[in-house]
Amino acid sequence: MKKFIDSPGTLLDTSLQGFAKAHADIVEVRTQPNFVLRKQRKTGKVALISGGGSGHEPLHAGFVGYGMLDAACPGQVFTSPTPDQMLEAAAAVDGGAGVLFIVKNYAGDVMNFEMAAEMLDGPSATVLVDDDVSLPKDHPIGRRGVAGTTIVEKILGAAAEQGYDLAACKALGERVVRATASMGVALTSCTVPALGHPTFELGADEIEIGVGIHGERGRETGKLLSASEIVGRIAGHIQQELNPPSGQAVLLHVNGFGATPLLELHLVYELAWQYWRERGLNIQRSLVGNFTTSLDMAGCSLTLSLLDDEMLGLWDAPVNTAALRWGC
Amino acid sequence: MKKFIDSPGTLLDTSLQGFAKAHADIVEVRTQPNFVLRKQRKTGKVALISGGGSGHEPLHAGFVGYGMLDAACPGQVFTSPTPDQMLEAAAAVDGGAGVLFIVKNYAGDVMNFEMAAEMLDGPSATVLVDDDVSLPKDHPIGRRGVAGTTIVEKILGAAAEQGYDLAACKALGERVVRATASMGVALTSCTVPALGHPTFELGADEIEIGVGIHGERGRETGKLLSASEIVGRIAGHIQQELNPPSGQAVLLHVNGFGATPLLELHLVYELAWQYWRERGLNIQRSLVGNFTTSLDMAGCSLTLSLLDDEMLGLWDAPVNTAALRWGC
Repeated sequence: MKKFIDSPGTLLDTSLQGFAKAHADIVEVRTQPNFVLRKQRKTGKVALISGGGSGHEPLHAGFVGYGMLDAACPGQVFTSPTPDQMLEAAAAVDGGAGVLFIVKNYAGDVMNFEMAAEMLDGPSATVLVDDDVSLPKDHPIGRRGVAGTTIVEKILGAAAEQGYDLAACKALGERVVRATASMGVALTSCTVPALGHPTFELGADEIEIGVGIHGERGRETGKLLSASEIVGRIAGHIQQELNPPSGQAVLLHVNGFGATPLLELHLVYELAWQYWRERGLNIQRSLVGNFTTSLDMAGCSLTLSLLDDEMLGLWDAPVNTAALRWGC
Repeated sequence: MKKFIDSPGTLLDTSLQGFAKAHADIVEVRTQPNFVLRKQRKTGKVALISGGGSGHEPLHAGFVGYGMLDAACPGQVFTSPTPDQMLEAAAAVDGGAGVLFIVKNYAGDVMNFEMAAEMLDGPSATVLVDDDVSLPKDHPIGRRGVAGTTIVEKILGAAAEQGYDLAACKALGERVVRATASMGVALTSCTVPALGHPTFELGADEIEIGVGIHGERGRETGKLLSASEIVGRIAGHIQQELNPPSGQAVLLHVNGFGATPLLELHLVYELAWQYWRERGLNIQRSLVGNFTTSLDMAGCSLTLSLLDDEMLGLWDAPVNTAALRWGC
């Protein structure tokens, strides 16, 4: 295993210290337990808290700041954070208007955020993100939360900033989740530092279609395809899921898993753009880059969000975080 | 070779089309010959043009926009752009105050930008970036231009925006270059699409210290070290080169080569921060992320820039590009 680490046990804590220093104008990092919170807090607004296993950076800590999250709780790599992190984060950022937890649909995350919500004194609500259409809708543990999370967190962050109350934030979040579908493809596995070897094996001419962001095996392991074929395949599943009417306004997000060059991500964007323009969609906004990563995995995902005017306005609203910044 | 491509011959053009669409609020892309230019142009300011081989994204196209570059000329992967690209770009963005070319020190780039400057009708000047201290100062072809280029382009972009004339831009650019030193380390090679196999071979327990951004062999091939040892090694070379006085204000840039997770880059930042704080430096600004990449290479570089008040103010000035954005 080749990584920049001193030991797997100190990787996260040291990295968080570096993150805090590199973005000291935007965030603070608290330890024991670990959480990241925005520096400029605001009373009277709903506090948005997310979190999950580390290894997906910039998600979630890179989304803490004005117009997006109030706090993020990082677990160890690919490991859920614990309720004490969420409770401490809530205590630090609760502005008196309740706490909204944004949770990717993984068993550990769901359980621990539920425990935190139960133990919390004040009002709270949860938005569950389950945008990965590579699993069927009726899968026993539900669908995974993947790159659509960035879109949910951006739109909800703007809404909370503009004074939406807790119930309105929750309703909006669930609407964004329903309007959002994602699917990914891996060219390589990733390597978890504490494990020291690739999470799964792929042959030199194989790809994994429908892969999860922890390297979960997907819908099919297949032979390497051209970029156009790959885009056609995964865009097809998203199209089938959302079935958008012609003329529908959408946001198209191409997300890199960590080791795929921007040169390739923009090529994938172009191919996906052509795919959906041929189907009559009105691609109004885009996001291309590494946002929901899977350590050093080569691969990418497509996410499509059907936009209404409210969502579009909230997407465009100012944001000032380590990883997304505009209008500020 | 596993990449998202249809064919090596169409990768760049298709990717540029995607880049143009994904960032249509900031840039335009012209073809035959290829160049990227900012959408909102301005007369009366020095026009900044850079360029080089593709495969280093977001450098340079991702730095085109308000407060940074006026145009970027992308060559094929790791291949110099040609003078016709630079001349067309100059014709499109010349605002009447002359053209400044920002050129990384590689033989092909230097030659082609020189030819363009000679063929250009109006006044022009060139700033050569050669920040890579892994080669000795008296190396026959000089030192390579690497991740310090981002800092040069940001500071010069702000200066041009504020009305610095051509001579002042050139003098400032050369001052920033002299104040900037970088060194990188590769954990893996990269794979050029047209080549189809890794540029160089590294054993499973080897790293390349002093690697160039095209995978040029560096100062030494050595055994895998801990992150602290690697940082100590490359920071030591930079420290020796710049020999900053205690209390010196600096900008510390940790640049990922493409396949290294942000989790590791922030760990490297923390270790480098500690290294230089122990040596009394005043780390006033930071930049951590993938800015000058080398396709899918795992690795990173450190860059240190000694800051004066003028440089600091220009660094902080508003910028609105695909890859760097603040204050706008």
